[in-house]
Amino acid sequence: MDPAINLPQVLAEVEAVFDEYERALTSNDVPALDRLFWVSPHTLRYGAGENLYGFEAIQAFRRGRPANNLERTITARAITTFGQDFAVANIEFRRDGSERIGRQSQTWVRMTDGWRVVSAHVSLMS
Amino acid sequence: MDPAINLPQVLAEVEAVFDEYERALTSNDVPALDRLFWVSPHTLRYGAGENLYGFEAIQAFRRGRPANNLERTITARAITTFGQDFAVANIEFRRDGSERIGRQSQTWVRMTDGWRVVSAHVSLMS
Repeated sequence: MDPAINLPQVLAEVEAVFDEYERALTSNDVPALDRLFWVSPHTLRYGAGENLYGFEAIQAFRRGRPANNLERTITARAITTFGQDFAVANIEFRRDGSERIGRQSQTWVRMTDGWRVVSAHVSLMS
Repeated sequence: MDPAINLPQVLAEVEAVFDEYERALTSNDVPALDRLFWVSPHTLRYGAGENLYGFEAIQAFRRGRPANNLERTITARAITTFGQDFAVANIEFRRDGSERIGRQSQTWVRMTDGWRVVSAHVSLMS
């Protein structure tokens, strides 16, 4: 049987953690960003200009990142949940002062402590 | 409880479908590529130069794509499975004749008919 798609309660939970992550990102709330990523050597984040393997590499990157110009406008958003414990969240965005289209993909998994990002990919469209 | 990570049988299954997808991609086997993507309006693919929403848009893109120069070398690969039915597969790659680092992220879900890509993101590192 296929997993149940977009069960309303599950979708609402993932939308809430997605919004929490977006607020943390644009305000550079590094502890909140850290909390929302899975603490594992398997966690992975491909950024616009870096490929980071493992929670510790992602955490170190965030701590070294300039905190300015993180504001962005989401121009498209698609969140899909599968069963009770798995979801993908994809957005298109633009940064103020840039015409380029950014894309952010996240895979979320429900862990004991709550929903966590296990894999992320951010890029600018060519 | 956290989902079981990388159960050997599940990991072997996802590695096999990942390899199948890679062979289909580099040989431009469009029917195989179509078969490995989830047939749903929720399926999504961010490519290097396009944002595609829904299985039909992805299928149309593949049919209109030039079949040459799809060969690539995988330089890093990380596949992680969660429980029995969910996985992420991430690679870095280079195309012949290019120095740029490509990245491909896929989220796989076990559907009734087998493992399917529900979300994908391909980009060149800035």
